[in-house]
Amino acid sequence: MHKKPDPARRSERSRQAILQAARELVTEVGYAKLSIEAIAARAGVGKQTIYRWWRSKGAVVFDSFLALSEDTQGMALPDTGDIEADLKTVMRATVAEFADPAFEAPIRALNMEIVADPELAAQYRDKLAGPVDEAKKERLRSAQRAGQIAEDADLDLALELLYAPVYQRWLLRTGPLTPEYADALVDAVLRALRP
Amino acid sequence: MHKKPDPARRSERSRQAILQAARELVTEVGYAKLSIEAIAARAGVGKQTIYRWWRSKGAVVFDSFLALSEDTQGMALPDTGDIEADLKTVMRATVAEFADPAFEAPIRALNMEIVADPELAAQYRDKLAGPVDEAKKERLRSAQRAGQIAEDADLDLALELLYAPVYQRWLLRTGPLTPEYADALVDAVLRALRP
Repeated sequence: MHKKPDPARRSERSRQAILQAARELVTEVGYAKLSIEAIAARAGVGKQTIYRWWRSKGAVVFDSFLALSEDTQGMALPDTGDIEADLKTVMRATVAEFADPAFEAPIRALNMEIVADPELAAQYRDKLAGPVDEAKKERLRSAQRAGQIAEDADLDLALELLYAPVYQRWLLRTGPLTPEYADALVDAVLRALRP
Repeated sequence: MHKKPDPARRSERSRQAILQAARELVTEVGYAKLSIEAIAARAGVGKQTIYRWWRSKGAVVFDSFLALSEDTQGMALPDTGDIEADLKTVMRATVAEFADPAFEAPIRALNMEIVADPELAAQYRDKLAGPVDEAKKERLRSAQRAGQIAEDADLDLALELLYAPVYQRWLLRTGPLTPEYADALVDAVLRALRP
């Protein structure tokens, strides 16, 4: 049988090539110098192909990061029954990720976009931060059931107390991002949440 | 006696006019559309006068905010002897400032600059955040002497726990900035710091 070209599959291949090119280029040249032309050239597509799917450079870069984390959707946090040990595992990994120079340029670029663009910020909350926060709160609820966290603790505030200091330290470069810092943060937040 | 022109005084007047123009314009048109030309026109000086003192648009805007806070240098936090009441007063004011639309555009613009430019971030820490943080820590030390906060509490971490959640909420627009939020934050952080 004669094999016909599959437009849907070709289209998906182009989309993936564009997203990968956007991720690579933002890391190599930084967000400010990144151009739609350069993404198109690296991906081997025309500029119009990109504008058919995305309205701006920021939107492509955003989706390129969203694609990275798509397989972490629905992820659960470790639950060994020990909230302190589990949170330290998670926060050490978070701190290490922020401290990794390979993530620095693209994640900083993404943050600049989100800070400047309320629509992108809303998308980020709905598609990325929201589902991940839900998984984190599920782990805190399990600790509440185990009597390790106060029943009436505000879990949104708890997540902010855990993550905002790391985010601010990284964003404003105000201090080292070390495993000791992750542990100190978890200890302090668990004291605040004690039953 | 014949009055001679005073170049130092005229120079300071120009400097103040430039800083005020930068503040006004960043609020009116946003940082992205702000130009050195527009600042010069509004301040009634030549472009070269601006470039004599500042290396970039970001540097002028930064100094324009620094000038605003110069008279708060050495400021002390209220100390009524009640750390909970005092921190709630301070954090409600902080939250209200972040929630004020008049501050929104210029402070967001300043933050974008700081996030993108490590040199500016270092200046910001040294000239602005550092002295203010020292005043805040002085109040926490007074609470330590009064037995209201653990003697071995990490005061840098304490400040991050208090301020980073507000900063993140504002920057990423992830939740309301209300007096209730300020109070809940102070309550949680004081639980974490209890002796």
